[in-house]
Amino acid sequence: MTHEIRLQTVVDSITPPDASYATDAWTRLDSLTKPPRSLGKLEELAARMAVIQHCTKPVAGPMAIALMAGDHGVVAEGVSPYPQDVTAQMVANFSAGGAAINQLAEHVGARLILVDVGVIGDLMRTAGVRHAKVRAGTRNMAQEPAMTREEVSQAMLVGVDLARELAGAGVRTIGTGEMGIGNTTAASALAAAYAGLDPADVVGRGTGLDDAGVAHKAEVIARALDVNAVSDLDALGVLAAVGGLEIAAMAGVFIGAAAAGIASVSDGFISGAALLAATRICPACAPYAFPSHRSVEPGHAAILEALALKPVLELDMRLGEGTGAALAMGVIEASCKVMSGMATFGDAGVSNREE
Amino acid sequence: MTHEIRLQTVVDSITPPDASYATDAWTRLDSLTKPPRSLGKLEELAARMAVIQHCTKPVAGPMAIALMAGDHGVVAEGVSPYPQDVTAQMVANFSAGGAAINQLAEHVGARLILVDVGVIGDLMRTAGVRHAKVRAGTRNMAQEPAMTREEVSQAMLVGVDLARELAGAGVRTIGTGEMGIGNTTAASALAAAYAGLDPADVVGRGTGLDDAGVAHKAEVIARALDVNAVSDLDALGVLAAVGGLEIAAMAGVFIGAAAAGIASVSDGFISGAALLAATRICPACAPYAFPSHRSVEPGHAAILEALALKPVLELDMRLGEGTGAALAMGVIEASCKVMSGMATFGDAGVSNREE
Repeated sequence: MTHEIRLQTVVDSITPPDASYATDAWTRLDSLTKPPRSLGKLEELAARMAVIQHCTKPVAGPMAIALMAGDHGVVAEGVSPYPQDVTAQMVANFSAGGAAINQLAEHVGARLILVDVGVIGDLMRTAGVRHAKVRAGTRNMAQEPAMTREEVSQAMLVGVDLARELAGAGVRTIGTGEMGIGNTTAASALAAAYAGLDPADVVGRGTGLDDAGVAHKAEVIARALDVNAVSDLDALGVLAAVGGLEIAAMAGVFIGAAAAGIASVSDGFISGAALLAATRICPACAPYAFPSHRSVEPGHAAILEALALKPVLELDMRLGEGTGAALAMGVIEASCKVMSGMATFGDAGVSNREE
Repeated sequence: MTHEIRLQTVVDSITPPDASYATDAWTRLDSLTKPPRSLGKLEELAARMAVIQHCTKPVAGPMAIALMAGDHGVVAEGVSPYPQDVTAQMVANFSAGGAAINQLAEHVGARLILVDVGVIGDLMRTAGVRHAKVRAGTRNMAQEPAMTREEVSQAMLVGVDLARELAGAGVRTIGTGEMGIGNTTAASALAAAYAGLDPADVVGRGTGLDDAGVAHKAEVIARALDVNAVSDLDALGVLAAVGGLEIAAMAGVFIGAAAAGIASVSDGFISGAALLAATRICPACAPYAFPSHRSVEPGHAAILEALALKPVLELDMRLGEGTGAALAMGVIEASCKVMSGMATFGDAGVSNREE
């Protein structure tokens, strides 16, 4: 069976959670010792977790973050101020515990899983890295499709299979993160293609471009969209043409989490582009996914609007790696603890409001 | 020595942290393996903690939340949809572990300390409650000053002494929370008095008033501001006239934390009013205080503007109890872990950007 056919089988198997559980969820939330809805977004998060888990006492943990790494052929166009070697160097840094995501995953109690889906450098001797390299970096999207349909499907299945494996091991919430020099270019191209926007409106500074760099990046993206005739492509074709291996793997995590009936959490701009791709390929996976924060990358706002999602946090972050997902997972876990652990007015002998 | 004189002695002893530590803090933050400033607000929080602690590797824990409880004479004017008994009942609920703050304090690893500064009900047999009752509820501010200057000073010293005791026991970050039926009325009156605003512009629904209830509450506050001639009073006099015992105790926590050189964290609207009072009485305590979230109570926006502070979180919460402080303390601790635990580009052998 080809990768694309196996992926389609998974996609076809997914059903949204039973939304009728929302009524019981809100009845419980409104019975707890607090003014109704006074915990705002925390209650909305808990209610969504309850629906996903088909219960009224949801639990967020155990939690894991899948950090997908891959390189980008489009870096040849000079779209990043960091050299391409940094992708592999940062995976080594994740492995050694030196990066921001190491601190934040530990802080919220999430297991961090590193996956090489397409890094150019050799990571075979880097401790703790899972090896699932589809190819050593994508092709240059400004000249040709970044991936074939088989390659993008294979990368997505890496995420699908990981999400299912983790769900089988008891994980109830899976976050996504990424590393890949050049991947804000791919994410911007995806945002422009899926949301039908002008590249200039979605392109930001990435890891630190100046104004001229931003203009050049927008021009490269416009060329990629044109060369690949993305407006004629289906959702998977778009992801193959202007996506990335690590972006496809994250899209697979969202789909695999939905297939396993567990919650998934996006990170920032790149991960948001992966979620947008996942929901275009498999709309039924959307109710399982939580957005985490609003990145300062302008394309992220466009993605959140296209997804009709409001982020949990707004911390002006733009790092990636899953750092925003980790912080949001901490809040989602807090919301579940509130919903599952609080006393009701009846339990606690507290007088309810005078009607 | 009178309470007011002892309080003034503490206030006079406070000096702001040495802001020159900010340079070293940002040098370290910019040396870590991430694009500069890519962690947004997280870096700003960490830098502030570094300045408070006069170091470049700040630590947020151990953390504690001081939950101050008191009743309000103004409840006689019909300003709350909940009966006054709920104050004592909720303290019992905190003691039994059934409230939202129990779940959230546990979630972020903060010790919860319950203090009765002025609850009408008898809490002598409620486990884990510290007894520091100044009086059984304030007087009705719509008719006379809620407290005398000695009473408000005594309530503030409860907070000052608790913060110093906790700092002595190693606590590095202290959050504030409150319980007191009627206390959004007091907080609104304080916001109007300190920021010079019309009561109608700062009054919200509290625990769930309808439109008529909101209009009545604004009228009661206008009467209280008028009866007490607050525009002729100094900052302590305003707090005595239209504040609350638990609000004064929280103001004391902010001042005591500053006196001990540790960080403090406000919660929502009520706690924000306490921070505003604290900074009007003792401007030097402001650099030690972190705002946590933006409450949906309209008066809270006015308070944050008067304080020139941007909140860490915006979760549409309006519960109080310290729930917003707890979640923000989780983020502040995360920021310290990032700053203190991450590798530098040099340490990790990661190439920095090409300049």
